[in-house]
Amino acid sequence: MALIVQKYGGTSVGTVERIEAVADRVAAAYHSGDDVLVVVSAMSGETNRLVGLAQAISENPLPRELDVLLSTGEQVTMALLCMALEKAGCSARSYTGGQVKILTDSAHNKARIKEIDGHRVKADLEQRNVVVVAGFQGVDEAGNITTLGRGGSDTTAVALAAALNAEECQIYTDVDGVYTTDPRVEPKARRLNQITFEEMLEMASLGSKVLQIRAVEFAGKYNVPLRVLSSFKEGKGTLITFEEESMEQAKISGIAFNRDEAKLTILGVPDQPGIAYKILGPIANANIEVDMIVQNMGADGSTTDFTFTVHRNDFKRAKVQLELTAKALGARQVAGDNEIVKISLVGVGMRSHAGIASTMFETLAKENINIRMISTSEIKISVVVDERYLELGVRSLHEAFELEKKPNSKA
Amino acid sequence: MALIVQKYGGTSVGTVERIEAVADRVAAAYHSGDDVLVVVSAMSGETNRLVGLAQAISENPLPRELDVLLSTGEQVTMALLCMALEKAGCSARSYTGGQVKILTDSAHNKARIKEIDGHRVKADLEQRNVVVVAGFQGVDEAGNITTLGRGGSDTTAVALAAALNAEECQIYTDVDGVYTTDPRVEPKARRLNQITFEEMLEMASLGSKVLQIRAVEFAGKYNVPLRVLSSFKEGKGTLITFEEESMEQAKISGIAFNRDEAKLTILGVPDQPGIAYKILGPIANANIEVDMIVQNMGADGSTTDFTFTVHRNDFKRAKVQLELTAKALGARQVAGDNEIVKISLVGVGMRSHAGIASTMFETLAKENINIRMISTSEIKISVVVDERYLELGVRSLHEAFELEKKPNSKA
Repeated sequence: MALIVQKYGGTSVGTVERIEAVADRVAAAYHSGDDVLVVVSAMSGETNRLVGLAQAISENPLPRELDVLLSTGEQVTMALLCMALEKAGCSARSYTGGQVKILTDSAHNKARIKEIDGHRVKADLEQRNVVVVAGFQGVDEAGNITTLGRGGSDTTAVALAAALNAEECQIYTDVDGVYTTDPRVEPKARRLNQITFEEMLEMASLGSKVLQIRAVEFAGKYNVPLRVLSSFKEGKGTLITFEEESMEQAKISGIAFNRDEAKLTILGVPDQPGIAYKILGPIANANIEVDMIVQNMGADGSTTDFTFTVHRNDFKRAKVQLELTAKALGARQVAGDNEIVKISLVGVGMRSHAGIASTMFETLAKENINIRMISTSEIKISVVVDERYLELGVRSLHEAFELEKKPNSKA
Repeated sequence: MALIVQKYGGTSVGTVERIEAVADRVAAAYHSGDDVLVVVSAMSGETNRLVGLAQAISENPLPRELDVLLSTGEQVTMALLCMALEKAGCSARSYTGGQVKILTDSAHNKARIKEIDGHRVKADLEQRNVVVVAGFQGVDEAGNITTLGRGGSDTTAVALAAALNAEECQIYTDVDGVYTTDPRVEPKARRLNQITFEEMLEMASLGSKVLQIRAVEFAGKYNVPLRVLSSFKEGKGTLITFEEESMEQAKISGIAFNRDEAKLTILGVPDQPGIAYKILGPIANANIEVDMIVQNMGADGSTTDFTFTVHRNDFKRAKVQLELTAKALGARQVAGDNEIVKISLVGVGMRSHAGIASTMFETLAKENINIRMISTSEIKISVVVDERYLELGVRSLHEAFELEKKPNSKA
């Protein structure tokens, strides 16, 4: 009689038929004896419809009222799902974020959960009701409706799982788990049975958009076992767990990549203390986020070359800003390239296995792929290469690290 | 600096453009110095859309969840109206029924308001915010969302006006007031400046569907001056007020009619005590509502004829039932007619003016309109006539009682 939290995203509840399919899946867990708490998103398309109404009135709708508006999306889904659950033979009760209550700060449109009072929900579960909670929303101290911002429904699910000591938090989505890399790029990509929280964070931030980063962080902080599964296919999905528990012996868990990057270099900057700040300060002030940063000594020994990457959408703005900085600092030149990609190897196994980096560089060299930037962290190595080498690079690395094979593992 | 409560129905807020027009109207009242609390319905069509979603899942959706679902309709409107008000230069804040809070009983889909805690709303009004409240909804003691049933938004407005001691409760709709009769039947029909609560109750229940009966009853009970106005046209509308205050000297205020009736007669029933119950009990048990009831002594003196009217939709069912009853009681015959209408004169002036009934009967006789049933109350006289005489009957009575002319009045 464990408590399972299940979260279904917008695509999974996008039509009445899909809501009924979700009800059948929930009912199966319920009838197997588990207590089930379900967190739902708005039906796909609904949030955009509501935003459209707001924007027809105002380009900058009042944040408080935007939350009042958007929170109706999940409220519709939760009511419909309860109706479908009743038909599927489960007694069910729905709760808005405010009804639960999920207490947040007052930062409308991007609120953070402060506390969950689970006593009403718990009482319902104890009476063998399925409880359906609206994701993405909460209520502040003064009783105002808040929303958690994009992807907030995952966070709601994890927070409820933590507050109610659930055995597992299952995130149902349109993919059936986390893969060694994107199967559209490497058809041999393999679904992972397990992945650690740290790896998942690196995978997510590097572009494998399966789970929201905040939800993963939250799950890690509160030790909530998180599982990613498909709403449309049967299967065990991928369990996101703690390193200590993971028995997979792989050096590398997966290969992430990101096509949204652009690279900027300022060449021949006089090498003096504080130069990084002088270069990146104006970029930050223009609200441009910087991803990778690399600094090299220049050819002459008294100047330095400084390279960083930004989102491709910010490339032009960043270049204009950097040219102003170059003039002010007396730098030789500014160079930019927005036809690059970042490829990253991710794996906690890296910590205990030497030679990962050299195997990576060797593999890319064999394919004549020129590495334009390198950056490393404890559990990942990222390289920037020309965009046209993305598929070749990912596939050759996938093969070199034998990711298509199941590692020695109990999983 | 009076407090005005304004209520806008679904048609008045049916599109973004109409919501912006409502905002301009509210802003005008606000900038004139009044405090304004606005009650809104769901955008027209939205409630039907939501009901459609529910019915795609279940013919009998869970009442609790239907309320959760339907209450989103008003929540969308209130958020959009606040955004539009901000653009129109008023600071505005929205409240769901639960946020206000409007405490109701737990009868989902048809809850009744028990109490209103106006302190949050009052504090906002004192700070010169326009407050926008979702109509039609509340919350029960346990925190469950409830709805008040059809037309409940009018009731919300009146209840808030009563709780906050508003100077006036203005109901904006798609007609510009209450008329002496339906202008589609009698083009000379005149808008009334005032009408009493009692008259309004008779007019509404007789088919002039301007205001919900429950809202009118509520307003009468709590002495809330109620005004019906158009959202689309300028004008003073019709003030619904207390008899003592009404100075209009008319004998008759208006002529209501109802096309939805059907007549059933059971002839030659042995006249004995309890016969009315024996006839109407089975009808009530079949959940059929009875409107007019008339009993006459039969031709032979020992039997009686018993006639009543039901909604036209219930005619067949009622007839089947009545035939069973007739057999059981040994009655001679059952007759039915579903091509009838009821025409009613309504007016508090009737109390002090004799001869109204005879003028009515004389007028109809002159036009050769045969009266099939008569029923009277303190402030109305109703007759049933053949359906084909509806227009002729209404117009001749309108002329006979000079309703097109303004009465001697200060209004």
